[in-house]
Amino acid sequence: MSIQVLGYAAHQANDTLKPWSFERRDVGPHDVQIEILYCGVCHSDLAQINNEWFEGIFPMVPGHEIVGRVVDVGQHVKNFKVGDLAGVGTLINSCRHCTNCHKSLEVYCEHGVVATYNNLDKYQDNLPTYGGYSNTIVSNEQFTLHIPQNLNLAATAPLLCAGITTYSPLKHWKVGKGHKLAVLGLGGLGHMAVKFGVALGAEVTVLSTSPSKESDAKKLGAHNFILTTNPEQVEKVKSSFDFILDTVSAKHDFDFYLSLLKLDGIHICVGIPPEGIHIKNVGLSLQLGRRSLVGSAVGGLLETQEMLDFCSEHNITAEIELINIQDIHDAFNRMEKSDVKYRFVIDMQSLKATATA
Amino acid sequence: MSIQVLGYAAHQANDTLKPWSFERRDVGPHDVQIEILYCGVCHSDLAQINNEWFEGIFPMVPGHEIVGRVVDVGQHVKNFKVGDLAGVGTLINSCRHCTNCHKSLEVYCEHGVVATYNNLDKYQDNLPTYGGYSNTIVSNEQFTLHIPQNLNLAATAPLLCAGITTYSPLKHWKVGKGHKLAVLGLGGLGHMAVKFGVALGAEVTVLSTSPSKESDAKKLGAHNFILTTNPEQVEKVKSSFDFILDTVSAKHDFDFYLSLLKLDGIHICVGIPPEGIHIKNVGLSLQLGRRSLVGSAVGGLLETQEMLDFCSEHNITAEIELINIQDIHDAFNRMEKSDVKYRFVIDMQSLKATATA
Repeated sequence: MSIQVLGYAAHQANDTLKPWSFERRDVGPHDVQIEILYCGVCHSDLAQINNEWFEGIFPMVPGHEIVGRVVDVGQHVKNFKVGDLAGVGTLINSCRHCTNCHKSLEVYCEHGVVATYNNLDKYQDNLPTYGGYSNTIVSNEQFTLHIPQNLNLAATAPLLCAGITTYSPLKHWKVGKGHKLAVLGLGGLGHMAVKFGVALGAEVTVLSTSPSKESDAKKLGAHNFILTTNPEQVEKVKSSFDFILDTVSAKHDFDFYLSLLKLDGIHICVGIPPEGIHIKNVGLSLQLGRRSLVGSAVGGLLETQEMLDFCSEHNITAEIELINIQDIHDAFNRMEKSDVKYRFVIDMQSLKATATA
Repeated sequence: MSIQVLGYAAHQANDTLKPWSFERRDVGPHDVQIEILYCGVCHSDLAQINNEWFEGIFPMVPGHEIVGRVVDVGQHVKNFKVGDLAGVGTLINSCRHCTNCHKSLEVYCEHGVVATYNNLDKYQDNLPTYGGYSNTIVSNEQFTLHIPQNLNLAATAPLLCAGITTYSPLKHWKVGKGHKLAVLGLGGLGHMAVKFGVALGAEVTVLSTSPSKESDAKKLGAHNFILTTNPEQVEKVKSSFDFILDTVSAKHDFDFYLSLLKLDGIHICVGIPPEGIHIKNVGLSLQLGRRSLVGSAVGGLLETQEMLDFCSEHNITAEIELINIQDIHDAFNRMEKSDVKYRFVIDMQSLKATATA
């Protein structure tokens, strides 16, 4: 028994996404089946289609910002019922037995997580995982999130990756009232970092090389804006921030940004610059401010649910542009030029046009 | 009025040290004059003579691991009297008014510290500072340490730099019982890190590329030794350490060492690799373990005194080779080849031979 699914897939690296019919496992006793209504478009979708991180598994159905409605539940499922709003984020399985899994830090599973797509589910059936650019998904209820009813559903999808990736480090390093937080990079992740930073009570400053970002930053709630190409503005914020949340996945000057942190300041990297991180002056940039450079992945399942509940309470969603799945490559092209405010979300109703075409 | 001093100085960059007579300020109301009995030889002495960090001030009298006996005190000095053992470390002045100075974090002074040598004392007389390769020094009592009487005096000198540089981060990041601490680099700093780690209750592992270091590590009290060129040994400690204290000032592979840290592990850099720090795989090395890379300088005055008192209580000193000042260049040569266990200390009595020669 299996479930017939329609999605969009790349059949080889760098390929154009095309409609593709495939199968998912039938709903097991602990599984939930979700009719996918919306799926966010993450930079990592394109990176993985293009084999930028590692040799991908093809055909590849991307998408890990998945929200929809429960259409079936297994007999032992306790926390979901048909009709509920539900979501799946970046991970769909883990060993469930190690120390980190027991702490609901599944993303740090000692035996390795199973990503929602472009991975083999070694804990289930060793078959490839397929993501949310599709009309339905089956997931274990432990790896399924409850989606708040009071939020715009499409704008909730990006919370499952862009949201939790920025919320998790802000919570882990206890960013809040009395802290000065700088946000670097005002894209899908950065704009969520601004919203969360403000909601957590920090004084939020957006750092940018582009003057046009100032009004955007203020609209999102940022208290301050620093044009990093302006030496006078930079001088004012030298050694001043408690935290920098760095969402940039392109090359940038870490010595410069570290110099903006005060004593014991923490530079949090959630972006992945392809050429890595280079700190040239260890003495000045790190040691003479006792500064930290840290990394953080997405949060675990408990924390992701906590984040969704926090968003429900504070009325936080992503800023999105809704697209049809047929326009995914236009979206990719614009995303590569950072020409999106701030996340593309696919309206999965558009798949039906493909199905009947 | 001024004090005539005999020391060893480099008269230009890369110069050989030679006897040199110079003057220090007379003892002011808050000053202590110390007859220098011993001075440790730090890698940074050679680096500064050779202008490796910045353009030096010449003539340069190096030395910032200074211990001796008080021979004069100013009229307002409260905490020292003639005959006391006293010491001076790496810093001899700071603004004394900023937030960090008020917390006795003088090394992180917002207006800049004054180093014990190769610096201008901008808070005092704007004259060059001269270090401990000399027979006497004058220092403000706030920047002067009490040296315990129960320890070997010569072996106490390196505590003022090598000691506090390793003690301070271990205390700041609360390394202790239940923690697995790896020490990287078994030199002047590393051997102190092993002793402090053990005394603080951590399980200490020395990481080295040289099999000959194993017996040395064990003699110093390390519980474990890992030969990092042996893949089987390395495999056993993957993702296992809470902390790495990295004392290496040469190029090394940060991605490799970060992989040995468990979730939330902290890699503490106290060495200064000239080419900086390069983390190639940000995702794997930092983000998927929520790891931190941090820097730390020497401690402030209060903490340095605390460290000395801790050493007194736990009977901790450096392992040293005592030399005459005339043999300083042999010592430099051996230090460059890491051929010293573990710190050279100059017996300042040897200066008298120069004086009368």
